[in-house]
Amino acid sequence: MSQCLSVALDCMGGDYAPQEIVKGGILAAKDLGFKVFLVGDEAKITSLLKSEGELANPLLEVVHAEGVIGMHEPPSNVLRKKSSSLHVAGRLVREGRADALVSAGNTGAVLAVGKFIVGAQELVERPSIGVALPNPKGKTVLIDVGANVDSKPKHLVQFAIIGHTYAQEILGIENPRVGILSIGEEEGKGNELVKETYPLLKETGLNFLGNAEGRDIYSGKFDVIVCDGFVGNVVLKTSESLGLTVVQMIKEEIKKSFIAKLGAVLMMPAFNRFKKKADFSEYGGIPLLGAKKPVIITHGRANAKAIRNAIRVAGEFISHEFNRKLMENIERFTPEVKRTTVGSG
Amino acid sequence: MSQCLSVALDCMGGDYAPQEIVKGGILAAKDLGFKVFLVGDEAKITSLLKSEGELANPLLEVVHAEGVIGMHEPPSNVLRKKSSSLHVAGRLVREGRADALVSAGNTGAVLAVGKFIVGAQELVERPSIGVALPNPKGKTVLIDVGANVDSKPKHLVQFAIIGHTYAQEILGIENPRVGILSIGEEEGKGNELVKETYPLLKETGLNFLGNAEGRDIYSGKFDVIVCDGFVGNVVLKTSESLGLTVVQMIKEEIKKSFIAKLGAVLMMPAFNRFKKKADFSEYGGIPLLGAKKPVIITHGRANAKAIRNAIRVAGEFISHEFNRKLMENIERFTPEVKRTTVGSG
Repeated sequence: MSQCLSVALDCMGGDYAPQEIVKGGILAAKDLGFKVFLVGDEAKITSLLKSEGELANPLLEVVHAEGVIGMHEPPSNVLRKKSSSLHVAGRLVREGRADALVSAGNTGAVLAVGKFIVGAQELVERPSIGVALPNPKGKTVLIDVGANVDSKPKHLVQFAIIGHTYAQEILGIENPRVGILSIGEEEGKGNELVKETYPLLKETGLNFLGNAEGRDIYSGKFDVIVCDGFVGNVVLKTSESLGLTVVQMIKEEIKKSFIAKLGAVLMMPAFNRFKKKADFSEYGGIPLLGAKKPVIITHGRANAKAIRNAIRVAGEFISHEFNRKLMENIERFTPEVKRTTVGSG
Repeated sequence: MSQCLSVALDCMGGDYAPQEIVKGGILAAKDLGFKVFLVGDEAKITSLLKSEGELANPLLEVVHAEGVIGMHEPPSNVLRKKSSSLHVAGRLVREGRADALVSAGNTGAVLAVGKFIVGAQELVERPSIGVALPNPKGKTVLIDVGANVDSKPKHLVQFAIIGHTYAQEILGIENPRVGILSIGEEEGKGNELVKETYPLLKETGLNFLGNAEGRDIYSGKFDVIVCDGFVGNVVLKTSESLGLTVVQMIKEEIKKSFIAKLGAVLMMPAFNRFKKKADFSEYGGIPLLGAKKPVIITHGRANAKAIRNAIRVAGEFISHEFNRKLMENIERFTPEVKRTTVGSG
């Protein structure tokens, strides 16, 4: 029993907390054999465990915490609210009692706990968020999508190495094709940050193909696309919203015709299969890459299954020895040039 | 006849040049009463006019030019290639013979001609590209989508005023709701550029609602969203590509089932109506806003109808006195503060 992986699960964050979160923790213990620290209001969690008949499960341990960081609360509050479920869960990881952190709570607050309580992995300057976006042929990792803004060239180089490691070790992509997000294909196109980062990426020894454009994010031409967290976050949120808008606009048009309504009904199973492929929650959350231990941020709307998947993903980072390989890659690919410190601002 | 509006039409740029471009020019002359300068290879254009039976149309005037800027050529080449169709068309506008420029050619090259040959309108520091994106309730102007990178706060303030003028005068939106693209709703969220621009926008007197997120671009919550051209270009190209990817992935799923195929056939008319709403080419191209005279950049794939629509749009900018109103708005809304010159770089 001492060998099993353990996860600190913030049971109070997210739209369906604590019910769905606790249920997800139970699934992870039962299906995956994880030791799960259920962090939050002890009375509520215990009552849920009781009604699920899991009070005696030795893999489930309740850790009491008072309070929660609200979904619209300033994320930095979490660093002051030391008794909040998220802070307590973060400390369990920091202190080595848990091997990973999973939360469906306030994304910014989870990030803050990942960066400042769990802390950055050795050699990593800025932990960053990589998201594996679907394309017709597979997945493309976009990194960073919001952990850092106003990044410097040396940070983008690290994002590339982190993204490469994620694509190779977790997504199983051999020799990932790496690009830098820009606004033209040729070298020399882009803003100052891109122009300064491009030559550094050429020196890394990564499989660097050059500039990627917005249209390449979903084309499958690249396995890893590097960008500043401001741009990446805007792209990610635009994508989610555009998908919803397209569906809504098509629905409006379908409403206008009985035949179209019938067609929509017949298409539903195919459409649902597509939705499943495109749905982030199926992937079990988004990892903060480069933290000392895996930190998985799930969607606020995460249900029990999404939480279970997020815990499974955390386990993959551990069993694939992601952090050890990341350190090796940083040592291998970081260009030994002083230019990396001559950033754009 | 001297009263009619005139347009310099680059007949050699675009995937379907010169045939579709010349046909589009003919439509504009016949349907809209425009005087059209058909700029390009005289022999080819004359032969097309002849086969269309329009050689004697007094509204159509061929202006010979040698050579064309290739779609993948470095855009700056156009400034050296003075005999190219795009350069000659630009000069017709600069010299006052034509009231507007329309081209389906190399986007960067059209931009360069707009900025450096047609030139910026008085008081405008950086002409910028605004695109009216569809949302379920109407349109949202995203500005700038690629005319400028590494913009400073004072430039974003001008983009806001230009976008406001576009939304109000051309799209007919009363008191447009203006936002700045960022990665969080609250004031203080974002990168340095956003944080410095925010207080300036509050002082403009525009109907400024604060930060917009990626998800707001297609939500209809804002009428104008301001951003640096790097971010805007990435968002625009991502959107186009995501649309195509979604359609392709849905098609793959539909192929797997006969019933779904039948459903798709029944839905087709509704789907085509949606596509028409979402299709940029239906809008007749994207304007470079803040140039001395209207410059309309159409998609490289523009057909005759798209060219005709682009010429119609150019005419609207003139008949709505866009430039006069833009100057009034710049005088009215620009904050008289020195802070505007203390940029981020």
